[in-house]
Amino acid sequence: MARKVGIIGLGHVGAAIAHSLSAQGAVDEFVFIDINEAKVTAEALDFEDAKANLEYNVNYVVNDWDALADADVVISSVGKISLQGTVTNKDRFVELQYTKHQIKGVSEKLVASGFKGVLVVITNPVDVITTMYQHFTGFPTTRVIGTGTLLDTARLHRAVGQVLQVHPKSVHGYNVGEHGNSQFTAWSTVTVKEQPITAYNLPLSELDEAVRSGGFTVYDGKKFTSYGIASAASRLTKAILTDSHEELPVSNYRAEYGVYVSYPMIVGRAGIVDEVKLSLSDEGQTKLAASAKLIHDRYEAVIAELDNE
Amino acid sequence: MARKVGIIGLGHVGAAIAHSLSAQGAVDEFVFIDINEAKVTAEALDFEDAKANLEYNVNYVVNDWDALADADVVISSVGKISLQGTVTNKDRFVELQYTKHQIKGVSEKLVASGFKGVLVVITNPVDVITTMYQHFTGFPTTRVIGTGTLLDTARLHRAVGQVLQVHPKSVHGYNVGEHGNSQFTAWSTVTVKEQPITAYNLPLSELDEAVRSGGFTVYDGKKFTSYGIASAASRLTKAILTDSHEELPVSNYRAEYGVYVSYPMIVGRAGIVDEVKLSLSDEGQTKLAASAKLIHDRYEAVIAELDNE
Amino acid sequence: MARKVGIIGLGHVGAAIAHSLSAQGAVDEFVFIDINEAKVTAEALDFEDAKANLEYNVNYVVNDWDALADADVVISSVGKISLQGTVTNKDRFVELQYTKHQIKGVSEKLVASGFKGVLVVITNPVDVITTMYQHFTGFPTTRVIGTGTLLDTARLHRAVGQVLQVHPKSVHGYNVGEHGNSQFTAWSTVTVKEQPITAYNLPLSELDEAVRSGGFTVYDGKKFTSYGIASAASRLTKAILTDSHEELPVSNYRAEYGVYVSYPMIVGRAGIVDEVKLSLSDEGQTKLAASAKLIHDRYEAVIAELDNE
Amino acid sequence: MARKVGIIGLGHVGAAIAHSLSAQGAVDEFVFIDINEAKVTAEALDFEDAKANLEYNVNYVVNDWDALADADVVISSVGKISLQGTVTNKDRFVELQYTKHQIKGVSEKLVASGFKGVLVVITNPVDVITTMYQHFTGFPTTRVIGTGTLLDTARLHRAVGQVLQVHPKSVHGYNVGEHGNSQFTAWSTVTVKEQPITAYNLPLSELDEAVRSGGFTVYDGKKFTSYGIASAASRLTKAILTDSHEELPVSNYRAEYGVYVSYPMIVGRAGIVDEVKLSLSDEGQTKLAASAKLIHDRYEAVIAELDNE
Repeated sequence: MARKVGIIGLGHVGAAIAHSLSAQGAVDEFVFIDINEAKVTAEALDFEDAKANLEYNVNYVVNDWDALADADVVISSVGKISLQGTVTNKDRFVELQYTKHQIKGVSEKLVASGFKGVLVVITNPVDVITTMYQHFTGFPTTRVIGTGTLLDTARLHRAVGQVLQVHPKSVHGYNVGEHGNSQFTAWSTVTVKEQPITAYNLPLSELDEAVRSGGFTVYDGKKFTSYGIASAASRLTKAILTDSHEELPVSNYRAEYGVYVSYPMIVGRAGIVDEVKLSLSDEGQTKLAASAKLIHDRYEAVIAELDNE
Repeated sequence: MARKVGIIGLGHVGAAIAHSLSAQGAVDEFVFIDINEAKVTAEALDFEDAKANLEYNVNYVVNDWDALADADVVISSVGKISLQGTVTNKDRFVELQYTKHQIKGVSEKLVASGFKGVLVVITNPVDVITTMYQHFTGFPTTRVIGTGTLLDTARLHRAVGQVLQVHPKSVHGYNVGEHGNSQFTAWSTVTVKEQPITAYNLPLSELDEAVRSGGFTVYDGKKFTSYGIASAASRLTKAILTDSHEELPVSNYRAEYGVYVSYPMIVGRAGIVDEVKLSLSDEGQTKLAASAKLIHDRYEAVIAELDNE
Repeated sequence: MARKVGIIGLGHVGAAIAHSLSAQGAVDEFVFIDINEAKVTAEALDFEDAKANLEYNVNYVVNDWDALADADVVISSVGKISLQGTVTNKDRFVELQYTKHQIKGVSEKLVASGFKGVLVVITNPVDVITTMYQHFTGFPTTRVIGTGTLLDTARLHRAVGQVLQVHPKSVHGYNVGEHGNSQFTAWSTVTVKEQPITAYNLPLSELDEAVRSGGFTVYDGKKFTSYGIASAASRLTKAILTDSHEELPVSNYRAEYGVYVSYPMIVGRAGIVDEVKLSLSDEGQTKLAASAKLIHDRYEAVIAELDNE
Repeated sequence: MARKVGIIGLGHVGAAIAHSLSAQGAVDEFVFIDINEAKVTAEALDFEDAKANLEYNVNYVVNDWDALADADVVISSVGKISLQGTVTNKDRFVELQYTKHQIKGVSEKLVASGFKGVLVVITNPVDVITTMYQHFTGFPTTRVIGTGTLLDTARLHRAVGQVLQVHPKSVHGYNVGEHGNSQFTAWSTVTVKEQPITAYNLPLSELDEAVRSGGFTVYDGKKFTSYGIASAASRLTKAILTDSHEELPVSNYRAEYGVYVSYPMIVGRAGIVDEVKLSLSDEGQTKLAASAKLIHDRYEAVIAELDNE
């Protein structure tokens, strides 16, 4: 019945996802949703102008919530870039206040559309926002997934791969926890060339720094990040569309913490389809719990604010 | 010996080209060149962060002119977006003055690198700039190609296809002339569902307008155009890399006009490998000559300015 | 809801179609049906063994008719190769007698499965068999399509392209009629480099021969043909899956002839979605009618035989 | 300079490799070499007939050894299927006698062609044949690679993945040793869902059997295997073409054994570019040494036979 993907929020990241999936012929129909009508129409038209020169056909629908009813995946890339033009005061607090209301409204429209697929969340802070989406939509927790540390893990694989001259895909191991300052590399899970990372006498704290500062280098140089996160979201989307049952570190609901936090899971058409059990060190366990607590506290605070309004 | 592509100017379009070709696995090694070191480094790092989640490997080299020596294709997407941050006065005249010197400098560095492949030019005004590149590099005219009306033709195919409900690739015919205001649809060449476009009683002037205003709609909505032009440039690049001998409307040197202007040609690894003969109406011939004259006059003026400095 | 394709008959061609679509990641789930249980199980397992080394995930289901209920496309590649092992007398008459009963049985099972997508027929003689499938399934004529002269047309484009050194995709025009001895090149529709084929002083009858003998050269050398026909069927399948509205020369029901015969049509998710009007010469019209009559006579004879049993 | 791949031996496997790489647009030019001129010409023509319906252009050259001079990769799929038609007595001994002379002759022609890329060997028994190729060509050991247990490992990942419902790519660990009866799964290296395989209480000997018998099931059902091995060889080829530095279990020269045997290594454009160190159990070490000895003895015997002729 075709691969159908909705994208809510056509900023740099949303558009880059649509671009890579279109260039690969990985999606048959996109539904683009954005409150900036001129922008979303422009993006769709720019993609229409690409069709004569691309290998595969893709169709584009704009701002039609009902069209999400039979979508396989809906990606929330709602965020600063597509929203901040709508408010006059652009400081962070105002934006956060705005975003939190957006999630509720988007959730209601999504539920109303009859959408039955998997919701993939990119909007930051991704773990809090994903928890909010699950709360407001009432979708089963397995059908709401955040991209979480899929990008941090890709950066880890890139950084370690560069030092040891192997492809990022040949580096194993994960970054887990919040996709934010409290995330960390679970070094006990990292192996390269079939040896634990500790066999290489590398300065792990410097690598940790390279993973983190890499993000800042991208941001400082281009004022946003797009291709890394877009590729992460595209891969997650394809895992769902093709029911691949791949192991991916994504933000998933962890009953033990009562909140969304990143940890590798098995992903398929139904969303989260199976769990994975990392061999974390005691330090890792502690860090993960602390990271989850941070998300939980922040989530509680936002919900309380909304309830008090 | 691998597919190697240089991109000079990593603005929105240059980066979008790198993104689509990376997502498709169509290039093995990119050489990114940009005078904004922070930006080009950021783009390369953003692409490196995508490698763990993409299907095919691609390697990235930054600001290494010597690495262009054995490139198959070099794409010039030098332009306002990547350059205007370097000048204080941002009005158009200053930019044009700046760009014209850029072309000479880029040409000299390209020649010095020992590059022997095909130069693909996107930088606007593309016909004048392509003529300048050929002049300054001294490369054979067949090895310097502008994207020209490949995008305008894609827009024509999109506009006609939407009205008649057929895929853009199933619309035949061309926009020719300058990639600019004097370009026009050669309606006598346009056929759909094996009938001339005139068989459909469509308001051709409105379609012409839809092609033209489409570009403005994209620009107005997103403040730049990227996916349409990036797909056009990517297709042209793949035609060269794979030696496909496809017929594409590109800006090529027309001896009869002494300048670059768009007209369909056969494209392969050697660049322009054969010519095509359109059945233009008398009106079409006149329009094409006028369009070419406009490019020629503008080119002569720029060269004269440079000679007088 | 995923791209789901059934293949009935896993001979060389059926398997080659599954291979190319799997390698491209163009299908999410295949349902393989074949009366030779050992062979179809072997093919599925061989594809399963490829999954660890392919870029995209594909799932395979074997001999489950019910799984066709929500398939987008079912391809009938039932034929000599997968069937003749089941009869002791291998002469053509026996095979034909067998095949004709197969079509009825397959049709009944397909209808019983609840299949609502588009049936793509490759089984030869394709025009008669496609007409039979539509008759026995009772599906709307628009939802039953034969590959017809899509392969003959590809061979025409290859032959002309080789002589004039242009890519097959840059050769326009069609072979129409029966996919068999009465098919012919509608030379009046053929253009290359924007000129009618007659502008090139080519020996058209020799080219006609090259198209025809090409098929025999392949058959003589490898004892079957596979990649050409598999690519034709794959392209048709992708046009349906992605609702591309491409113009393709396929075997479609022609009311004026009361039978399936090849002629370019617009193809989308609903199957045949629009018609095309070729400018055939009088000779072409006559040849086409004769070709259709041949198919019609043969079809009538087969149906009469079945009714008399 | 384009991706150029030679294939020597256009049997089922050689042709399937060309098919998948063509369908993916992963190669720009193939050079097909086969002593059966009719067959190799037929295969090339069948691929030419696919060009009009494929997304990417690929060019094909037939039986031109000189064209291998600038190839990036040459694949030897010489074997029973393409050769046995040339001898009257088809028992295995005769075939082996024939094959061993083929390797010497092919090596000489390959050296004479000036080929400077990486030789990928599929011809069975692959470890002995790969050792022979390196011996006769005198190429550096790093530039001659056998597909080895890349297929056995894919089968392991498939078998374990099916039982535990995860994608084959999410199963880690290797089959090593001879690609033949003495190969074995190094169970100490196998992990799934971040746990050692032993955590799942699976009957490992039955899984071992499923890996092995899977190959026989494919062979028994279709009388040859093609897609599994073709995908393995295609992946290895792409790792070389794109200089990916992936970790792959391939037949590589092991100085400690003086012969080619499968073990994971890092693969790039230069062939074997780095080594990997498995944590094998003592039993695994012993099995690997025994497997290597078997290959070594067989290799010595073949070389001695050739020297005594």
